[in-house]
Amino acid sequence: MPRVAIGVDLGGTSIKAARVHEAAGIVEEHSLPTEAAEGPAHVLDRIAHVARKLGAEEAEVEGIGVGAPGGVSWDRTTVTRSPNFPNWGTVNVQHGLTERLGFDGPIVVGNDANVAGLGSAFHGAGQAYDSFIMVTLGTGVGGAIIYENEIFRGSTGGAAEIGHMTIDYEGPLARSGVAGAIEGYLGHEFIARYAQLRLLNEDTLVRDLLPEGDLAQVTTKTLTEAARKGDAPAIAVLAWAGHKLGCVLGSAINLLDIRTVVVGGGASAAGNFILQPARDTVTDYVTPALQDGIAIVQETLGNEAGILGAARLAFQYLDTYAPSSGAS
Amino acid sequence: MPRVAIGVDLGGTSIKAARVHEAAGIVEEHSLPTEAAEGPAHVLDRIAHVARKLGAEEAEVEGIGVGAPGGVSWDRTTVTRSPNFPNWGTVNVQHGLTERLGFDGPIVVGNDANVAGLGSAFHGAGQAYDSFIMVTLGTGVGGAIIYENEIFRGSTGGAAEIGHMTIDYEGPLARSGVAGAIEGYLGHEFIARYAQLRLLNEDTLVRDLLPEGDLAQVTTKTLTEAARKGDAPAIAVLAWAGHKLGCVLGSAINLLDIRTVVVGGGASAAGNFILQPARDTVTDYVTPALQDGIAIVQETLGNEAGILGAARLAFQYLDTYAPSSGAS
Repeated sequence: MPRVAIGVDLGGTSIKAARVHEAAGIVEEHSLPTEAAEGPAHVLDRIAHVARKLGAEEAEVEGIGVGAPGGVSWDRTTVTRSPNFPNWGTVNVQHGLTERLGFDGPIVVGNDANVAGLGSAFHGAGQAYDSFIMVTLGTGVGGAIIYENEIFRGSTGGAAEIGHMTIDYEGPLARSGVAGAIEGYLGHEFIARYAQLRLLNEDTLVRDLLPEGDLAQVTTKTLTEAARKGDAPAIAVLAWAGHKLGCVLGSAINLLDIRTVVVGGGASAAGNFILQPARDTVTDYVTPALQDGIAIVQETLGNEAGILGAARLAFQYLDTYAPSSGAS
Repeated sequence: MPRVAIGVDLGGTSIKAARVHEAAGIVEEHSLPTEAAEGPAHVLDRIAHVARKLGAEEAEVEGIGVGAPGGVSWDRTTVTRSPNFPNWGTVNVQHGLTERLGFDGPIVVGNDANVAGLGSAFHGAGQAYDSFIMVTLGTGVGGAIIYENEIFRGSTGGAAEIGHMTIDYEGPLARSGVAGAIEGYLGHEFIARYAQLRLLNEDTLVRDLLPEGDLAQVTTKTLTEAARKGDAPAIAVLAWAGHKLGCVLGSAINLLDIRTVVVGGGASAAGNFILQPARDTVTDYVTPALQDGIAIVQETLGNEAGILGAARLAFQYLDTYAPSSGAS
């Protein structure tokens, strides 16, 4: 009988969750607003609520996985310094949910970008690879190292912070304070700011796509829309972003010798407008001995990567700590 | 009874090897010139010669490990693109030595920087840590990722090429062709070139330490000697190098969440003249969530790190593929 788990993607604005069959994937999905401003107890109430709707109280559900922004403890119980939940401090998600649900199976927490990588590995573009680097382009730039189908966690569980790797030690600051960190080029607000300035004196379709032609409202989405219509200035902005992505991926490939990169997150919808310039750049930043077979591919799963990855985290926990009879 | 292996450090100018007891370390050591220009068959003859002198034909010797510059195949048999052996192509070291020695235990090959990391993990500064990043500062800048007391190998065995990570995507080229690669700052010839230019118009003790005061002959060693005597220009050059090292280590720590760095290789003898500026810099290049507990320490083993690490590689191979009775 296929195993069943609940996967939860805890975001700053919404909680997305699903009941997941190990092989078949999502069988039922729910989402609701996070209402993060109400504090952690309220958010845990809401997660418990959605988990109950998905059958957390049924015997068939063997585990619950939660992907959350921020740092996750090595034992996968707590979340710390979550950028979208500024007043959270450290919250024991496992304890909070166990208490609320009376659930006796494992409840495990993973970093959201890490978990999206796991979702990709088992259900998305990453299925074709045992090991790959996942980059998620969104408000921030997140990452995952999937090594032999598991999340590489480093020493404390915080590995794969690709967004904070520098490509220019004297470059512009990102929110982390790191000069030249890739997030300071590719994070939502940074690419928008670059586009605003670069397009200021250009004749571009992007203006037509924005309310009152206000470039202050530009997003990767509007840039992509204009690029698809052949708008050269928009294409140039996305190519600039892709070039920077190629630089940082070169460094990551040198360090890890993992040559496949899966790019997800909202801005990945720009597809080859970002990815092709990244491909054209990356080999220039990798030592010749490691250049063969480099691939940069787009994740198409969207939000489901996080939900499916969270459920997978629960399945992997069960494999390790509570293997079903017959398994080794 | 403690296990015995032979560890070989194959360098461009000399072959250094030792008979190594698993617990006690080096018990007997030999070295001889590599004579690399004579070609791979000759070099393999010389390795076999030194291995025989160290007792490769005695039953007590259970394995042979070889650390070599260049790429090593996943199965640890061949060496490719070895920078110090330009005409080697791909050489099957395992086969060549098995044939010459009639040795029936495992003969395993590792990248020299990787193997030095393993030596540090079991016999050097790395003993205090289960996981650390090793950086070797020499002609090139090599690296190792030691994760839970083993070499992290990536997908094909080529991981930890820290020397080729960029810190400035528009920076100066290194020999790999990577712009801003750290090797293009810290590799022997690069730091020497920087020193030549920086010291040109300075009143510095470095000149007094060089034949005819010829700055073209400056090395990290002379810089360190002058720095120890309080020479401010020499101190400034080493601090410049340390700052660059801190930048790249920040990127590596973000990606790996491995917060201890062991620095070895010839230039590491500069000690805190390089390491303190690296320490002062590194946290500026790491996201706040991963800044706690970062340590940059000096490896003091010297060449022995490579020999001991090569022997350890053989012991780890025996653990995995030919465990002694009683072991799991």
